[in-house]
Amino acid sequence: METPVVSLTLRVRYAETDQMGVVYYANYLVWFEMGRAEYCRRMGFSYAELETSGFRLMVADAHCRYKAPARYDERVRVETTIQELKKKTLVFGYKIFNDATGQLLAQGYTKHVCTDMAGRLVRLPESFTRCLVGTP
Amino acid sequence: METPVVSLTLRVRYAETDQMGVVYYANYLVWFEMGRAEYCRRMGFSYAELETSGFRLMVADAHCRYKAPARYDERVRVETTIQELKKKTLVFGYKIFNDATGQLLAQGYTKHVCTDMAGRLVRLPESFTRCLVGTP
Amino acid sequence: METPVVSLTLRVRYAETDQMGVVYYANYLVWFEMGRAEYCRRMGFSYAELETSGFRLMVADAHCRYKAPARYDERVRVETTIQELKKKTLVFGYKIFNDATGQLLAQGYTKHVCTDMAGRLVRLPESFTRCLVGTP
Amino acid sequence: METPVVSLTLRVRYAETDQMGVVYYANYLVWFEMGRAEYCRRMGFSYAELETSGFRLMVADAHCRYKAPARYDERVRVETTIQELKKKTLVFGYKIFNDATGQLLAQGYTKHVCTDMAGRLVRLPESFTRCLVGTP
Repeated sequence: METPVVSLTLRVRYAETDQMGVVYYANYLVWFEMGRAEYCRRMGFSYAELETSGFRLMVADAHCRYKAPARYDERVRVETTIQELKKKTLVFGYKIFNDATGQLLAQGYTKHVCTDMAGRLVRLPESFTRCLVGTP
Repeated sequence: METPVVSLTLRVRYAETDQMGVVYYANYLVWFEMGRAEYCRRMGFSYAELETSGFRLMVADAHCRYKAPARYDERVRVETTIQELKKKTLVFGYKIFNDATGQLLAQGYTKHVCTDMAGRLVRLPESFTRCLVGTP
Repeated sequence: METPVVSLTLRVRYAETDQMGVVYYANYLVWFEMGRAEYCRRMGFSYAELETSGFRLMVADAHCRYKAPARYDERVRVETTIQELKKKTLVFGYKIFNDATGQLLAQGYTKHVCTDMAGRLVRLPESFTRCLVGTP
Repeated sequence: METPVVSLTLRVRYAETDQMGVVYYANYLVWFEMGRAEYCRRMGFSYAELETSGFRLMVADAHCRYKAPARYDERVRVETTIQELKKKTLVFGYKIFNDATGQLLAQGYTKHVCTDMAGRLVRLPESFTRCLVGTP
């Protein structure tokens, strides 16, 4: 599947560092979340609206491979794409770069299942999936 | 007002440190939250139940004075009490200690207003306030 | 003292919300940190450099008054200024607005003391203080 | 490899929830970190000491599969073991349970590489690896 790649840049917060002097590893998953929100937004769909209309994208699986550390005050770039899109599940893929040097810092994916507000597995709304694979 | 002092101990997480090698300052407010939850629990009232019955304790004000840093892996003790209890507001007071040395690390307070689920200011439920000033 | 007001806008992350459906109260202190980093940056001084040259701005005091909740996906604006500048201490003041409506969501301050790497109280470096009260 | 399983229980913090009303997905990685710290501690080795003696366990890889949500105020149990131990790398495995019901909430692993303080890959100190596979 060929889907767009959507970029988001952000600056590393002091709060995101740990005593090793680098970004704490769980925070990359927060950046992934920002990446997929930006992906949806750029494709004309806000994740906030998806929730308002009664759907949830629960995370079923998350993976991150760490290549090089991100540090305080650096600008990092999150590149998000869709790796897989099925009737009830989708997989976002992410690459995180140091925006100044272009160095790849981390990459990973998150797999999501679509549920209603009661937590029951449901189909992804078509209006949403049409957007996801469209043109940004 | 004379109210009980309730203690909670916790161990500092790596995630809570920053690159200065000490606990990031916003995390003390998280410990305050744990302190007041423990206070309620020990007085026979869970904050989770309070929410289930339709009430919210919105934070209106928070203050923390930092005396000495907490570090990774140390055990800290949060001592929580009630500093003020009015019809629609209450103030929790907190002291945070290094549990091994007894050194005071930080102290502060949070002021809360009681609202219903629509965010309207309401009276604190009497069943709740009776518990708060009782015997743990 | 008349000092500049420096603005920073950011978008609320899902990670920053809590089960009340609004931003968790400790996260405003993270936004304060971003506000003062931006203040320094705009005045020609990076906080990262200050640390590299051996100084630390330890937080001695933090206060936040919460007026109205921030919600997921909203853009908020952090306005930062310097409220007080002494030889060894300084106070940053912050106002946080909903950037779309202009509504004031929170305001507060943080007081900092300057230390060397061993944690001893020292004077703020003059090159830094000159920048702080200059023209952005 | 047969290694001990070390348990740690903790109570879900309000700060750890998000507006979906469940624990935000990145926080499971924080619980993993607490699990492996507890593992080391129970085996007679503190991760803090490992750092003091000049070693770092950088995370190279993290994975989490989410089965069922954890909620505010629940007690969860983190069970940690070692899945793989090589000369320069080790893999911790984790299972997270609702401590009251025994339901499996999540499981995952983290892979670590041992470095010196300059970030160079080095062998895991033998005093450390001997502890890791010993008797708690």
